[in-house]
Amino acid sequence: MINYPNKKGPYISQTMDATNRGMDFERLIDESNTFYRLNQQAVIHKKPTPVQIVKVDYPKRQLAKIVEAYYKVPSTTDYNGIYRGYYIDFDVKESHSATSFPLKNIHAHQIDHLEAVNKHGGLAFILIYFKTHGTVHLLPYKVLAQFVKRAEKGRKSMTYEELVTQALPVKIGYRPSIDYLVAVDRLIDDC
Amino acid sequence: MINYPNKKGPYISQTMDATNRGMDFERLIDESNTFYRLNQQAVIHKKPTPVQIVKVDYPKRQLAKIVEAYYKVPSTTDYNGIYRGYYIDFDVKESHSATSFPLKNIHAHQIDHLEAVNKHGGLAFILIYFKTHGTVHLLPYKVLAQFVKRAEKGRKSMTYEELVTQALPVKIGYRPSIDYLVAVDRLIDDC
Repeated sequence: MINYPNKKGPYISQTMDATNRGMDFERLIDESNTFYRLNQQAVIHKKPTPVQIVKVDYPKRQLAKIVEAYYKVPSTTDYNGIYRGYYIDFDVKESHSATSFPLKNIHAHQIDHLEAVNKHGGLAFILIYFKTHGTVHLLPYKVLAQFVKRAEKGRKSMTYEELVTQALPVKIGYRPSIDYLVAVDRLIDDC
Repeated sequence: MINYPNKKGPYISQTMDATNRGMDFERLIDESNTFYRLNQQAVIHKKPTPVQIVKVDYPKRQLAKIVEAYYKVPSTTDYNGIYRGYYIDFDVKESHSATSFPLKNIHAHQIDHLEAVNKHGGLAFILIYFKTHGTVHLLPYKVLAQFVKRAEKGRKSMTYEELVTQALPVKIGYRPSIDYLVAVDRLIDDC
């Protein structure tokens, strides 16, 4: 993979389609999931954003209109589904730093949720996109748990170097743009 | 199970706690899922209601307030998670009729979604609560598919009798109130 020193905007790799460069990482994951579904490789969806609805108007002959609502803290990760018969569950994060990924970006309830999924035999992980390097890493829950443990007494972040060596590299392509199921195959082999 | 001819409100069975009688079926399922999670039996959550957010206000020193949003049609079922290592995916329906359950209550995209889940080796089904009988039935996707096929040329609903004989009965209890994982165990045995 070749990374260009392009400071003008987000990009991922040489193979990224030009029209995708302006899109955010979650959007690319959503597109990859649509590709996987259409190709019957996996059934993985993003969960809707949780919202506390307080007030709804019902104008005549029109759609119900929500006029007061607030964002709620999600109690789980954003993505889940089924792949090769396995339950799969993950969240998606971006790092704007070139050198490290702060653990505070992963909420405590998300870590608890991934731990529970892992315990029940599911595939639990975080997909991390390092914007400045244009690389994507699959961090299995078991590796994440070690960094979380270290953070109790020491360093509160993972270095980029640690991610490169201890997480699984994710293939960047054209269709799908983020071909993370290849890394999931390796995760299954390691189980 | 004994059903009382109580016309005053919703009830499920003799064993239903009096304080739960006024609650709706989805709420009882949510409570059962919380029970299962706390007892580390399964990790199953309801997905948030999908909402299209159009306008958000950011009042100073206050929470972001959504002031214009609309309900979206869900593209999947409402519930999924992991149980005994299996991916589990289902929707929850109530029937207000004593004699039949109309298939139009299950949206086409939900049937497609359950079909895909079933194909990938997941446990796909519908939980149907018959209010007047106070009974709950687990309808496996494979049985549902037969009724959907029949509906192309004939009857557009399942009779209560058909559900009693072809779906799996769901245990009603105290903790959890809707102990549907017992029926899921039977579904796994049948696979």
